[in-house]
Amino acid sequence: MNDTHELLRRHASVRAFRPVELADERVREAVASAQMASTSSHVQAYSLLRVRDPNERRRLAELCGGQAQVAEAGAFFVVCADQRRHRLAAELRERPYVPNLETFLVAVIDASLFAQNLVVAFESEGLGVCYIGGLRNDLDAVAELLELPHDVFPLYGLCVGEPVERPDAKPRLPVEAVLIEGRYPSDEAVRALLAEYDGVMSSYYESRGRPGRDWSGGVAAKFREARRSHLASFYRRRGAELDG
Amino acid sequence: MNDTHELLRRHASVRAFRPVELADERVREAVASAQMASTSSHVQAYSLLRVRDPNERRRLAELCGGQAQVAEAGAFFVVCADQRRHRLAAELRERPYVPNLETFLVAVIDASLFAQNLVVAFESEGLGVCYIGGLRNDLDAVAELLELPHDVFPLYGLCVGEPVERPDAKPRLPVEAVLIEGRYPSDEAVRALLAEYDGVMSSYYESRGRPGRDWSGGVAAKFREARRSHLASFYRRRGAELDG
Repeated sequence: MNDTHELLRRHASVRAFRPVELADERVREAVASAQMASTSSHVQAYSLLRVRDPNERRRLAELCGGQAQVAEAGAFFVVCADQRRHRLAAELRERPYVPNLETFLVAVIDASLFAQNLVVAFESEGLGVCYIGGLRNDLDAVAELLELPHDVFPLYGLCVGEPVERPDAKPRLPVEAVLIEGRYPSDEAVRALLAEYDGVMSSYYESRGRPGRDWSGGVAAKFREARRSHLASFYRRRGAELDG
Repeated sequence: MNDTHELLRRHASVRAFRPVELADERVREAVASAQMASTSSHVQAYSLLRVRDPNERRRLAELCGGQAQVAEAGAFFVVCADQRRHRLAAELRERPYVPNLETFLVAVIDASLFAQNLVVAFESEGLGVCYIGGLRNDLDAVAELLELPHDVFPLYGLCVGEPVERPDAKPRLPVEAVLIEGRYPSDEAVRALLAEYDGVMSSYYESRGRPGRDWSGGVAAKFREARRSHLASFYRRRGAELDG
């Protein structure tokens, strides 16, 4: 296994950071590397907002569900799907700009390929990272706080910094649950893989002082009611189309 | 700049592959590394389908808009946002399963963080890759051909293999267009950055025998009418919700 595989396999989200600000030059270099990620038809439909103001970071930490690392990490970023440059380019060339679900998906995917490259770049320097899905708890408040213009769609936050400690990697689904050869397996076959994995995760949680938990139970609890039900309305109001 | 940054910066999509099948063990190892990507609440909402049948690959090459590499690369994969395991886990625990735009976005983002890790893993071994957005040209035909069950949402294809040649990296937007400090720049400031970049891309295309092209013009042409307008209907019919 080469060094890159080893780097990827060591990943675990870091939530406790040393109080050391991440240097501008490191951020610029990591962004330049991350931008080389594939992008659909070269549209590069993303922006990365760095939030520096301590008051704004404290407010975002609250909005993200009380996640202190949003205020405390060496840097906090908001990853955005960004179609604003496309709309401006269309205006410049006097063409209509017609968004639909395809263009929104392209932007979400472009942004996420970029973000993961960024994470790999930072982790290769020994930094720790943590994606913050809690950014979607209240996107109206986030957009108001950061004065985001239309066509810029915040997706998630990203904390980066020097880790206080490096958590152990958490076991993933068996490879054969994710890598599918030929036809998608029967429900019975999937259930057998999930039962195997529930055993692994149950031991994992027990060894960390959280007995009685497993993967299926966690997933079933997570999806039992709709969460963050403002997303469609928010993205539409900001210029996205989720139909057609 | 460390080796990982250099690896990321060398990326360029490969469309011509040597006729050498990608070994199963390499795929398994790359998937195991890629699975360590961050995942929202550990839900791991993705699957990777490897398509081996030569007839199916030829048919997919047509469906993707006549992209020969879909049939010819060392391996062809379909990256799927996958909520099927979640629905089965909910059934197992006798809980309702309530999808909405949040759960769909989580799955698209999870899948894309995983996919980009996979790409980095393969590229670290000297392999070439190419994402295939053309998979979304006709998702009904793709789903029928591969007999995809509900709650498994194909997003894009991925070709992997030994490159015939390694294209030069293509210039990206200026870092300051993507990395935003403080407030999102004014339209005027964005237009100035795009004008600068149009100059860079115009020279790039000209040096490759394609004069008269630039970035704004390409983007304006791309978004001037709705493409792939069946996506919302397709994903909804397969079990996604794009509201709430």
